[in-house]
Amino acid sequence: MNFSTEQLPGAVEINEVGPRDGFQAEDEFMPTECKVEIIDALSRTGVAAIQVTSVVHPKAVPQLADAEDVMARIERAPGVRYTVLVPNLRGAERAVPMGADGWELMLSVTDSHSRSNANRNTDEALRGMEPVVALARENGVEVTGSMATALGCPFEGKVPFERVLYVAEAYRAMGVRHLGVADTVGVADPRLVFETMSGLKERLPGITLGLHLHNTRGMALANVLAALQAGVTEFDSSVGGLGGCPFAPGATGNISTEDLVHMLDLMGVGSGVDLDSMLAVAREVKEVVGHPLESAVARAGKAEDLHEAPQAQAL
Amino acid sequence: MNFSTEQLPGAVEINEVGPRDGFQAEDEFMPTECKVEIIDALSRTGVAAIQVTSVVHPKAVPQLADAEDVMARIERAPGVRYTVLVPNLRGAERAVPMGADGWELMLSVTDSHSRSNANRNTDEALRGMEPVVALARENGVEVTGSMATALGCPFEGKVPFERVLYVAEAYRAMGVRHLGVADTVGVADPRLVFETMSGLKERLPGITLGLHLHNTRGMALANVLAALQAGVTEFDSSVGGLGGCPFAPGATGNISTEDLVHMLDLMGVGSGVDLDSMLAVAREVKEVVGHPLESAVARAGKAEDLHEAPQAQAL
Repeated sequence: MNFSTEQLPGAVEINEVGPRDGFQAEDEFMPTECKVEIIDALSRTGVAAIQVTSVVHPKAVPQLADAEDVMARIERAPGVRYTVLVPNLRGAERAVPMGADGWELMLSVTDSHSRSNANRNTDEALRGMEPVVALARENGVEVTGSMATALGCPFEGKVPFERVLYVAEAYRAMGVRHLGVADTVGVADPRLVFETMSGLKERLPGITLGLHLHNTRGMALANVLAALQAGVTEFDSSVGGLGGCPFAPGATGNISTEDLVHMLDLMGVGSGVDLDSMLAVAREVKEVVGHPLESAVARAGKAEDLHEAPQAQAL
Repeated sequence: MNFSTEQLPGAVEINEVGPRDGFQAEDEFMPTECKVEIIDALSRTGVAAIQVTSVVHPKAVPQLADAEDVMARIERAPGVRYTVLVPNLRGAERAVPMGADGWELMLSVTDSHSRSNANRNTDEALRGMEPVVALARENGVEVTGSMATALGCPFEGKVPFERVLYVAEAYRAMGVRHLGVADTVGVADPRLVFETMSGLKERLPGITLGLHLHNTRGMALANVLAALQAGVTEFDSSVGGLGGCPFAPGATGNISTEDLVHMLDLMGVGSGVDLDSMLAVAREVKEVVGHPLESAVARAGKAEDLHEAPQAQAL
């Protein structure tokens, strides 16, 4: 068994979600100018896509109330996809004039989480997505069907694979060809990730799958490894590991883009992202948010950084 | 490919190293009484072994100057192996009357790290271990030949596999049958771990291998997964993730025992450790050391902990 070449993909795509999933978790509203500056810096790191903002109702997520402004003011780099998170039809109608390259539709696989987050159960949320998908098609916008709590729910615990498949098939029936599997509260383990992603690939040929991980229990990079072994080649991650978990205050958030790229680089899996550029953005982010980052590499430096051996004790 | 049953071992052994590798990294000297209390609590968690202390010179590591006292005062539980770290012959002579079940011999695979740590190069350190191994044999003590910097050196960077094999074979020539591979500064990635552990297993039949990981760059649990896939069944870990990295102040230390056991439990790999008992010890450790722990599960809770769905928004 050759771990590197037989089991792992040669390259993956990074979808940077810090500007949405990260900024919305900050206590303070981040000034629009800062958001734009960070997104523009991210555009120059080599990420495949950036989730710029969300068209959720500003009362629900005041941190992203400037969605239109941010989208209008960023400088779009050629080759980078700029997406917005779209929770419902009202949001989609707001999103149309913003001209994003893609919409990420978001709903929860478990009813209790769906009710808690969107005040409707999963089936209702799925029905609500039908006109959204139609509107995207009319406007030539690509959609990703994201599945929150697909790898575990804070209220219901383990989620049966058949439930995830049910939601995935409902998305597919609407014509969605790109799905996102989310470990919303950071409870997935590598075996679950491998089995879920392998299972979905097998049952849904022709569908592309991305993975959205949180590092709440330290397993995010192990889950990346398992996902790579299952053939997954699209990963969400957040610069500086921004993002939180409402059920575990003080816990780590999204998998950090630096930590992900650092591991991929060491393993010889290409991502197109320049790690030094990303670490520079992380330093900028740290300044702006004003608290330490949950990013191991930002804290400790790269594995390849060498230190000088102490001279005093040299023979 | 079935991730769980074909690729992974059914059970592993945990060697708790917090009392040595962790306590020695604390700024403050931990009172002997506290050490004994924590070790006794660890004895009741189900770990296979505990590295109790080190017989390094007290001037070099004042935090463990009470090695004899600690060893004499702990209550040894049946079935648990109690070991001490032995850096040289002088230490071994101190260790004999302590009556440990095992000695962990420690030397660095890279000359620059060996000189920095022990003021001698690797070959000199290996020659110095010969009388230590002989003394262990005379006293019926099991030895583990540990190899610091085997997966990367802070001064030299990447370490060629042939260099690790050279040191492993030197240990074997002395009659050592149990080796420890250490990622001393937390730079290993899963591919390197898989290839090194697989390579050593292939080249050294009959030798048992343990793995000592640091989580400095967030890859420890991913490295565990890779090691499991290489058939490794012995892991060092530290309660609360105690332990530091002198080259990355503020960075995470050893892989946390709670995080390791938590992931193994979720994956169905037995360790014999009761996670709740270990989390209780971690809480005690946190009190004693007086700073936050680098343990994701201690911070965030277990994946299986459920939360109550908010009633206000329920349909």
